[in-house]
Amino acid sequence: MNALLNLPDWLSTIHHDGSQKYVSALYPRLGETVRLRLRVSPAAGVRRVVLRAFPDGEQAFTLMSHTATTPAAQWWEADLVIDEPITHYRFIIDAADGLWHYSAAGATAHVPLDATDFRIIADYHAPDWLESAVFYQIFPDRFANGDPGNDPQPSDYEYRGQRPKTYPWEAPPDPDHPFPLVFYGGDLAGIEARLDYLADLGVNALYLNPVFHALSNHKYDVADYDRVDPHFGGDEALIALRRALSARGMRYILDIVPNHCGYWHPWFQDALTNQTAAEAEFFTFRRHPDDYATWLGVWTLPKLNYRSQELRRRVYDGPEAVFRRWLRPPFSADGWRVDVANMLGRQGATQVGLDVSRGIRRAVKETNGDSYLLGEHFFDATAQLQSDQWDGVMNYGGFTQPLLYWLSGYRQGAHGFTGLLSAPHWPTAALAETWRSRLAVVPWAIARQQYNLLDSHDTPRIRTTLGENDALHRLAVTILMTFPGVPGLYYGDEIGLTDLPALAARGCMVWDETRWNRPLHRFHRDLIQLRRRSPALQRGGFQLLAVEPDTIAYQRESVDERIIVVAHRGENPRPAGVLDVAHGGVADEARFVDWASGAEFVVEHGALALPSLPQGAIMLQAVS
Amino acid sequence: MNALLNLPDWLSTIHHDGSQKYVSALYPRLGETVRLRLRVSPAAGVRRVVLRAFPDGEQAFTLMSHTATTPAAQWWEADLVIDEPITHYRFIIDAADGLWHYSAAGATAHVPLDATDFRIIADYHAPDWLESAVFYQIFPDRFANGDPGNDPQPSDYEYRGQRPKTYPWEAPPDPDHPFPLVFYGGDLAGIEARLDYLADLGVNALYLNPVFHALSNHKYDVADYDRVDPHFGGDEALIALRRALSARGMRYILDIVPNHCGYWHPWFQDALTNQTAAEAEFFTFRRHPDDYATWLGVWTLPKLNYRSQELRRRVYDGPEAVFRRWLRPPFSADGWRVDVANMLGRQGATQVGLDVSRGIRRAVKETNGDSYLLGEHFFDATAQLQSDQWDGVMNYGGFTQPLLYWLSGYRQGAHGFTGLLSAPHWPTAALAETWRSRLAVVPWAIARQQYNLLDSHDTPRIRTTLGENDALHRLAVTILMTFPGVPGLYYGDEIGLTDLPALAARGCMVWDETRWNRPLHRFHRDLIQLRRRSPALQRGGFQLLAVEPDTIAYQRESVDERIIVVAHRGENPRPAGVLDVAHGGVADEARFVDWASGAEFVVEHGALALPSLPQGAIMLQAVS
Repeated sequence: MNALLNLPDWLSTIHHDGSQKYVSALYPRLGETVRLRLRVSPAAGVRRVVLRAFPDGEQAFTLMSHTATTPAAQWWEADLVIDEPITHYRFIIDAADGLWHYSAAGATAHVPLDATDFRIIADYHAPDWLESAVFYQIFPDRFANGDPGNDPQPSDYEYRGQRPKTYPWEAPPDPDHPFPLVFYGGDLAGIEARLDYLADLGVNALYLNPVFHALSNHKYDVADYDRVDPHFGGDEALIALRRALSARGMRYILDIVPNHCGYWHPWFQDALTNQTAAEAEFFTFRRHPDDYATWLGVWTLPKLNYRSQELRRRVYDGPEAVFRRWLRPPFSADGWRVDVANMLGRQGATQVGLDVSRGIRRAVKETNGDSYLLGEHFFDATAQLQSDQWDGVMNYGGFTQPLLYWLSGYRQGAHGFTGLLSAPHWPTAALAETWRSRLAVVPWAIARQQYNLLDSHDTPRIRTTLGENDALHRLAVTILMTFPGVPGLYYGDEIGLTDLPALAARGCMVWDETRWNRPLHRFHRDLIQLRRRSPALQRGGFQLLAVEPDTIAYQRESVDERIIVVAHRGENPRPAGVLDVAHGGVADEARFVDWASGAEFVVEHGALALPSLPQGAIMLQAVS
Repeated sequence: MNALLNLPDWLSTIHHDGSQKYVSALYPRLGETVRLRLRVSPAAGVRRVVLRAFPDGEQAFTLMSHTATTPAAQWWEADLVIDEPITHYRFIIDAADGLWHYSAAGATAHVPLDATDFRIIADYHAPDWLESAVFYQIFPDRFANGDPGNDPQPSDYEYRGQRPKTYPWEAPPDPDHPFPLVFYGGDLAGIEARLDYLADLGVNALYLNPVFHALSNHKYDVADYDRVDPHFGGDEALIALRRALSARGMRYILDIVPNHCGYWHPWFQDALTNQTAAEAEFFTFRRHPDDYATWLGVWTLPKLNYRSQELRRRVYDGPEAVFRRWLRPPFSADGWRVDVANMLGRQGATQVGLDVSRGIRRAVKETNGDSYLLGEHFFDATAQLQSDQWDGVMNYGGFTQPLLYWLSGYRQGAHGFTGLLSAPHWPTAALAETWRSRLAVVPWAIARQQYNLLDSHDTPRIRTTLGENDALHRLAVTILMTFPGVPGLYYGDEIGLTDLPALAARGCMVWDETRWNRPLHRFHRDLIQLRRRSPALQRGGFQLLAVEPDTIAYQRESVDERIIVVAHRGENPRPAGVLDVAHGGVADEARFVDWASGAEFVVEHGALALPSLPQGAIMLQAVS
C-alpha cells in the first residue's frame, strides 16, 4: 500500500529558497523585516498565496501580494518580521485544483511538519570569506617534504615496541611496519613551499589534518594540544605558513580531536598512574586502570569525559583553552575542523554533547568571529546544524554519500560490523530525495556553509571509488563545484591520484608533473575559477529540474546569473531530447551557453533541446 | 518534476512499531536489553535484515536473526541495549530487488533522516491508568447546575461596566450581554451529581475546563490560581468531587493557564499600579502601564514573563507552586491540561519555553509520578513530545484536523487573519500521510499518550462540523476510539448536541433524555466499552492497510488481538470487493467478525471479500 499522492505537475513550478532572489536579507538583525518572494508558473492558476509563519508558536497567515507576472514566472511577495532567534515559515498555495502546502521539502497536499519549514536566523554572523572559499585538504605527512631535517627517525621514539621510519617519497612501506609509524617526511614547510602550486590551482583555503604533537603519522592520537609536532616543523613552521598564506590571501583551518586524546597524552598518563590526579576525571574508568571508555573500543584513544568542568575549561572554556589559542596570533587559524563531532560529549547515560558543542562555538566565535567551525559527521547532523553548534559539517550524509551511491552503488558499513551492505544501482530519485530532504532541514544560511567533499583521508579516493572512470570523475567534480555549500578538494585528486595498496587514500602527492593527469588538472583549475567568480554558484538558490533514470539536473540562480547542471551517469548517452526548464522560471527564447563547448541553446516550448549527452556533466550558463 | 520513487508493493508488508508485539519492553530501564521484532511477507525475498542503531552518535549495525516463518509472516529479531536516555534505531532490508531503509515513516530507497527513527525512552514512567482511560471534557458552567445557591448574580461584581447573569438552563442569552458574562449556573456539584451518568457511559476520566477563580464563564482569565471559583462551589466542591470520583475509580485533570493570567489577577494589578512591585517582572511592559505583552493582543490576558525566576517559583518551581498544590490532597488532581502550551515561555527574543515546560514537568512528576501532563497544541508539537516536556498534547494537529479535513474539507484560519483557507476534498493520501508522519516523529510511548479528540470548547462540535451527518459522526467516533492515543469525548457529543447560534460549542448539556439521540448515545457507550476492554485498542500497534479515494483502513494488533477498521467517507457505498490484509501479517483462512453486525469473513488470497460498504466505518475483530 503506497500512498502515492499523484501531485499535479505544476507544483514543481513553485519555488522559494533562502537565496537573495527570494529573501531580501540573508543575515537580518533581530527586529528587521525581510521581503520574501515566491515564484510559480503563470499558467498554474494560483489564486492566492499565504505566508504561514509561527511567531512564538502560534500560526500566523499573511496574504502575499501578486507583484509581477512575466512570461516565465508569476511572483508573490510578503514581508516577514524577524523577531525570534530563528524565524520559520512556509507557504500555502490556493489554486484552482486545491490548497497546497509548500515548505523547503517541496509541495504537499498534507500539512507538513515544522521540521521542513524555511528558516531564517537572526543576528547570525557568517565568516564572510567562506562564500568564495574553495578548500584543499592536506594530510601533512604525505603532501610535501619541505625540511628533511625534521623527518621522523627510528631513534626518535618507541611505540609499542616499534619505531617510526621515514621512507623515501612514494616508496612502498615495509609490510610489517605498523601503519601509524610509516612516515614520508611531509611537513608544514613543504606546504608553504607549494603554495604557488595551490594558488595556481585556484584553491584559497587549506584544511590541514592534525598537526599537534602525536606519535602516529595521522596524529589523531594527540599527545599535546598545545604544540605543533616537531616532525612537522613545530610552532615556528605553522607561524611561517600562516604568514605565507596571508601574503596570498589564503586561509587555513586546523583539525582538532576534542572527543578523545592519545594514550600517551600526559592527561591520560597522569590519570592512569594516579586516581586522584586532577586529570583522572577527564576519563571514564569502569575499572582503574585497565578498563576505560575509548573511541569505539580503540585502546589508544581514551574518550574524554565532558562531565568534567576542568576539562571543558582546558579544551574550550578557559582563556588559554586549546580551541581559543590557535585562533590567536601568531597562528591565527581561520577555524577548526572538529573530529568526531557526532560523538562529542556523548557517553550512554551522559549526553552533554549539546552543551559541549555550544560551548565550543561560544569560545571559537568570541575569539575570532570570522572563523569557520566545521564538524566531522558521517550521518544525519540536522540537530547540530541549527546555528547554535557547527557552521557546517563535512557533508558526507547530505552530499558525498548520496552522490557516490548514485554513481557507483550504495555501500555502508559500521564499526564492529563485518562487511558492507551494498546495492548496485541507487535510483536517481533516491539521490534527489536525499539532497532535497537534507537541504530542507537546515537553514539556508547553514546549508551554504556545509563542507562538500568527494573523499578524504577517511574514505577511498574519488577516482578509485569511480573505478578510474574519467567521465564520472569529472561529473562528480562538476557537482562538487556547483552544489550549495563550500567545495573541498582532497590533495592529489586533481592530478588523478588513486588509492594505493598499502597507503589507501593517503599516498604521497606526486610532484613529477609528467605523471599528472594534466587534462584533469586543467579541468579542476577551470572549474575552481568558475566557482570563484560565479555569484550563482557561491550564493545562488538551488532547484532540481529533472530526475530521470540516469540523469539529474538542477539550477543555481542568483539575482543576475543562472547555471543549469545536467549530470548523466549512464554508460549509454542520454538520447538527444528536451530538458524542461520552464518550471525553473526560465522563459522561452532564453539563451544558454555550454560552459565547456560554447554551444548555444535556446529555450522553446519551456524546454531546452539538448543533443545526445555522453556520460558526464554539462553546465549551461544563461546568457543575459 | 515529481520524484516519485515507485517503491515496490511488497515494502508495505514490512512492519515494526513500538508496541509489545514488536518490542519486548515498552518501558525499559537504562541498561536493559530489549528484543526487537520485524515482520515482513514470506514472499518478499528478504535475504538479510540489519538493525541500524546509533549509539552515542555513531552508526552500529546488527544482523537480525530470521526466527520464524508462518504462512502470514516472516519474523526477524535482534537485541538492542537501551543505554542512552533515548535510544533510536531503524532497519535496513536486504532484498532481491535492492536495499531498503525502514523507519517509522515507512520504507524508502534513500537513507532517511534520524527524525523518523523508532525511539525508546529509558527509565520512562507513564501514568499507568492512562492506557485504559477514556476522557470526558466538561465546560463546568454548561454541564449541570448542582447548587443554584452559587449561581453568579448581577450583584456579585462588575466587569467593564457589565454584570454577570445566570440564565435559565438552555435559555438563549440576551444578544447584548457580553459573551463571557453569560452564565448558566453549572458547577462542580452538578458534575458530582451526574457521575452515575458518566460511569454508565463508560468514561473514567474527566478533563475539566478551568475552575480557578476568574470573572468570565470560561475562566481562562484567571484571577486566582489558588482557589476554586465560588460560583463553581469553591475548594470544598472540588474536594467533594474528588472523593466521589475516587469512589468510582475515576480520574480528573484540571486546566491551567500558565501562559498568561487575567487582567484582574492581583499580580497584574500590582504590576500596573506599582512598577517596583515584586510582580512587575512577571509581565512585559513595553511602556508602563498601558503597553504590555498579551496573549495575541487580547488586553485582558497579559502574558506571563518567565524570565522571572520568582514567577517560575510561584507557578511551578516552589514547594507551594500552583502546579504542585492541586496535585496534592485533598484535591489530588490526576494531572493538568496546560493551556497554550505552544506559546509558553516564548516572547520574541526571549525563548525559554523549553526551560519552562521541562521545569513544569519536573514539578508535576515529583509531586505525583502518575499524573498526566497534557499540553494544548493546535500545530506540530513534535519538539515538545520527546519525553522531557508533555506526556502528550491535545492532538489537533496529528489526529483531529487531518481526520476532519478528510471528512468535511480542509479549513484553516489564524489569529489576525480574516477568513479561512479552505478546500473541499482532502485526499485520503493526505490523511494517511499526516497520520503516518506525525506518528513517526514521536516515540511510541508518547504516541500512546496523545489526547485524541474530535472537538472541544475551542472548535465547532463534531456533529456540526459534519453537517449533522450521523454516518460520518459514527465514523469519526469509531476512529477516535480505535486510534493510538487516549480518546477524549466532549460533553454532550454523545447525545447529539450541535452548535448553538449564540453559544457555539458551549451550549448547555441536555438532561431531558427524551431529547437525546439515543442510538448515538448507545453507540458511544458500546464503543467506549469495547475500547476499555480491548488490549489491541489500548496498546496494540498501528498499521495502515488501505488508502483509497474515499476509504482508509488500518489495523491495531496486540499480542492476542487484532482489529481492522475500515472507514468509508463516500456518499456512495464502497462497492463490494476485496480489502488486502496479507501485508498486515494476516494469514489466509483467518476469520474476522464485524463488531456491529456479527457477520463473519474469512481471508482468502490475502484479502477479505467485503460487501458493499455504506458511508461509515466498520470494525472487524479477528477470531482466534
